[in-house]
Amino acid sequence: MFDFKKITIIGIGLIGSSFALAMKKQGFKGTITGVGRNEINLIKAKELGIIDSYSTSHTEAVRNADLILLATPAGQFEQIVTAISNDVQKGAIITDVGSVKAEVTDKLDPLMPEGVSFVGAHPIAGKECPGIEAATAELFNNAKCILTPTAKTDSQALSRVKDLWNTIGTDTVEMTPQEHDLVFAAVSHMPHVAAYALVNAVLDTKDDILQYGGKGLKDMTRIALSPTELWRDICSCNREEMLTTLRNFSSSISKMIALIEGSDWDGLEKEFIRANKARQFIESN
Amino acid sequence: MFDFKKITIIGIGLIGSSFALAMKKQGFKGTITGVGRNEINLIKAKELGIIDSYSTSHTEAVRNADLILLATPAGQFEQIVTAISNDVQKGAIITDVGSVKAEVTDKLDPLMPEGVSFVGAHPIAGKECPGIEAATAELFNNAKCILTPTAKTDSQALSRVKDLWNTIGTDTVEMTPQEHDLVFAAVSHMPHVAAYALVNAVLDTKDDILQYGGKGLKDMTRIALSPTELWRDICSCNREEMLTTLRNFSSSISKMIALIEGSDWDGLEKEFIRANKARQFIESN
Repeated sequence: MFDFKKITIIGIGLIGSSFALAMKKQGFKGTITGVGRNEINLIKAKELGIIDSYSTSHTEAVRNADLILLATPAGQFEQIVTAISNDVQKGAIITDVGSVKAEVTDKLDPLMPEGVSFVGAHPIAGKECPGIEAATAELFNNAKCILTPTAKTDSQALSRVKDLWNTIGTDTVEMTPQEHDLVFAAVSHMPHVAAYALVNAVLDTKDDILQYGGKGLKDMTRIALSPTELWRDICSCNREEMLTTLRNFSSSISKMIALIEGSDWDGLEKEFIRANKARQFIESN
Repeated sequence: MFDFKKITIIGIGLIGSSFALAMKKQGFKGTITGVGRNEINLIKAKELGIIDSYSTSHTEAVRNADLILLATPAGQFEQIVTAISNDVQKGAIITDVGSVKAEVTDKLDPLMPEGVSFVGAHPIAGKECPGIEAATAELFNNAKCILTPTAKTDSQALSRVKDLWNTIGTDTVEMTPQEHDLVFAAVSHMPHVAAYALVNAVLDTKDDILQYGGKGLKDMTRIALSPTELWRDICSCNREEMLTTLRNFSSSISKMIALIEGSDWDGLEKEFIRANKARQFIESN
């Protein structure tokens, strides 16, 4: 089922650990090596049976690996790939789980040593709690995994990475890196920024106002609890598409304002109905 | 505990029915009469022991009542009060549960017959399912109930309505009708319109995009599942404060856009941190 012998996962957090657990659950018989800066975390991961061995040295850990999974924050990928490029064996595949694709792909494609293929991937899975404590072999069950090949991507490497993600339960979809970044700016990155902006707009209205917020406001701003550093990085990595989708949202708000200014209640309800129907579609999916 | 003998509830939906059940649970010994247009619903409410008697005639039902609770959509209050004003007995109190206050109060205050007091109230309670099937005596437990007296409000009537809501478990807070409408525009009405606008902005990005929305987008747009007619009416009843708060939100979004345009990542994260901290405060409350 798996034609890999040694998998090296760089970054042993929620996604990296869950990937390792899912591979083992599906019967992967090779070795899984974990790499990270925090040795205590790596020891724990080994004790929990998530990884078979670990190293704090990237170059040492990638030797003889036939699959290298980048599972750190995407901002570190370029530096990591530059550091390991002399030690990656010919025929190996480097793949990732980053949530932004175009900038990363543009940077990583030219850094690949001869005979080494890069395949961009983004499994749409996560949890509110980070880290290995929250890891589970079921994290990817029925999730989508977006693969973002470019003209430079080796088709055999793409097909092997695709098989891997299908085997551990995801439904793979191919998009260009640019298309991926626009789609996820719209359905994820921009809504996060909008949630932060919404909380701030409520705060600016009146002192002590937050105590009056009910379940609706809580649900709508839950993602403003997300780590601010992560979302700062995503905004910086996906700057253009963030701007496009935030401007679209701003226009959508302006349209509502204009309809209320004009007391056009039929026109306003038409906008509400459009959103309401689409949201029901999300609910049923 | 209760110094009322006959309470008439106009509008036997989730809030009206839950109010009746909560009163009975707290030992109210007088009569509760329900009024509505749908006789089948009223019969059911009587069978379920929610109300003691019912009528489809407003004028008949309010005779001899010492408390009249308006629990229909707020758009109907003016018409109802005009219709009953000759039949309400001297000394009676008319109160309501509407979620918009200033416009309603301006309209109802001058319609009060001599010796009849109006006290505006808004219990902050609700459920996703409407109707008497969802009614429960516990709906108001630990909820806030905003009372919105004006210079015209009789202080004794205010105090009796306050006691009533405290007895059935709410924490009462007094605000002017205008203050109430600004606060609830910010924490509830504007976020609903923003949720509809967000769904539409995502839809406009690309065909078939909604399938990629995850838990974050679902949470953030859950309130776009709310009845569009209700929110159309609230926008119309609270037009000025809706515009104020939507414009504030639009400015908050514009600030985020400017920071991303300027690649001011420190400045952007500062905005995120402000929202993140405030959101944690909501979580802990």
